[in-house]
Amino acid sequence: MIIVKAGGGEGLDMAAVVADAAEIVKQGQQVVLVHGGSHETNVVSEKLGHPPRFVTSMSGHSSRYTDRETLEIFLMTAAGKINKLIVEQLQQLGVNAVGLSGLDGRLLEGQRKESLRIVENGKRKILRGEYSGMIEKVNAGLLKLLLEAGYTPVVAPLAISTESEGLNVDGDRVAAAIGAALQADKVIILTNVPGLLRDIEDEGSLIKQIPAAQAESYLDRYAKGRMKRKVLGAVEALQDGVGQVIIADGRAEKPVQRALAGEGTVIG
Amino acid sequence: MIIVKAGGGEGLDMAAVVADAAEIVKQGQQVVLVHGGSHETNVVSEKLGHPPRFVTSMSGHSSRYTDRETLEIFLMTAAGKINKLIVEQLQQLGVNAVGLSGLDGRLLEGQRKESLRIVENGKRKILRGEYSGMIEKVNAGLLKLLLEAGYTPVVAPLAISTESEGLNVDGDRVAAAIGAALQADKVIILTNVPGLLRDIEDEGSLIKQIPAAQAESYLDRYAKGRMKRKVLGAVEALQDGVGQVIIADGRAEKPVQRALAGEGTVIG
Repeated sequence: MIIVKAGGGEGLDMAAVVADAAEIVKQGQQVVLVHGGSHETNVVSEKLGHPPRFVTSMSGHSSRYTDRETLEIFLMTAAGKINKLIVEQLQQLGVNAVGLSGLDGRLLEGQRKESLRIVENGKRKILRGEYSGMIEKVNAGLLKLLLEAGYTPVVAPLAISTESEGLNVDGDRVAAAIGAALQADKVIILTNVPGLLRDIEDEGSLIKQIPAAQAESYLDRYAKGRMKRKVLGAVEALQDGVGQVIIADGRAEKPVQRALAGEGTVIG
Repeated sequence: MIIVKAGGGEGLDMAAVVADAAEIVKQGQQVVLVHGGSHETNVVSEKLGHPPRFVTSMSGHSSRYTDRETLEIFLMTAAGKINKLIVEQLQQLGVNAVGLSGLDGRLLEGQRKESLRIVENGKRKILRGEYSGMIEKVNAGLLKLLLEAGYTPVVAPLAISTESEGLNVDGDRVAAAIGAALQADKVIILTNVPGLLRDIEDEGSLIKQIPAAQAESYLDRYAKGRMKRKVLGAVEALQDGVGQVIIADGRAEKPVQRALAGEGTVIG
């Protein structure tokens, strides 16, 4: 059982990822494919006259403000367009894919974060009406039901709150949570760099192997920005029983098979 | 087993339909809910700078021209926003809904109609690049798998072609095809009139009962415009083993329970 996460940002060759995932499914592997949606959401939000708003948290991190309208645009782009175009491509390649969001069958459930504590023009503010959260529960039964019947689940990074509201969630954490719930052999997180780098400016400085016990210290030392979330998701997944997490390059041909062969940063 | 179709056009109280369907599910009935998407697609298409285009066929019927861009907008609005907002509402009402499009698991499969023969400014033309079709095959196994596990499927009116391309399909025909594939007891088609009317100008002229054998002659005599497709779908569904088709008013409170009690036009 393999979980593959790809997309969200720019630079990834999504068609190559999907084609490669299809090959692996046809070799008899069970695969769950998790995708992103933030870039497309930005594009569509602009066109619909509700431009994306990024805010800075008290701790200095930048994140999207997901108000209700943004959530609905995210449903359109991630759960609608991106999810179904991946399903269409997989079907063309002979893989019987089923697209889901975390709302469907309460696949991904979490607590809603209703407000963001932000810093704007040097002032501290509380921004209400936020629709995001952290995943606390995965409906593994629904994924197993589909996998055992021969379907390949494709998952959009949205969850449902305990009060049954849609939530925007981080795709890397979705892959980690699903990996843990299914006790997957490998979680592969494809990105637009070769893996975790010692020096973010030098793609040759790839860290090839991290023992599970040292993942947190590597995280503190080398992970910056979005990579921090990827490695943090990896740490959690390994603690929860996933065999290996591989952070690998999603820009090349056959990115999934390369990652399986050990290219990238292998954690655990 | 009941199939409920609602929405697409304006005037329907979709929240009331969904709430009523939830009550019936909680009474222990298996329900498949089919929705539309054309109105929302028109709105979003305009905003995205790709306004909807309606054309007139040789036989004088008006229909949407679904080019590839329109298909992708339809995926966003119908399979993304509308489908997932219904799933969210059902979850809030305690029903474990799973949203699907006809692409997922090849739920609805058909032949693609690649071109439209149209009349424009009095001239006959062939318009290519069309992505629509008629449903020829339903993956009843996927619906049964979900229903038997306690999930309530919510279906967006898109299908997949034999060449695995997404297709825009008519929601009433989706309900009829699913009803036939599942050998449903009843297919309820909710609309913004009380049912089939003898006189389209007079809502008091409702035809209350049509024997299955006479459905085609009533169709010829009384069905106009969109109602024609609804009654045609009903005729097909009855021929394929559905118990009853009820065309009923979707504007009232408890529209599904009213239809089940015999309000509307009961065919078969």
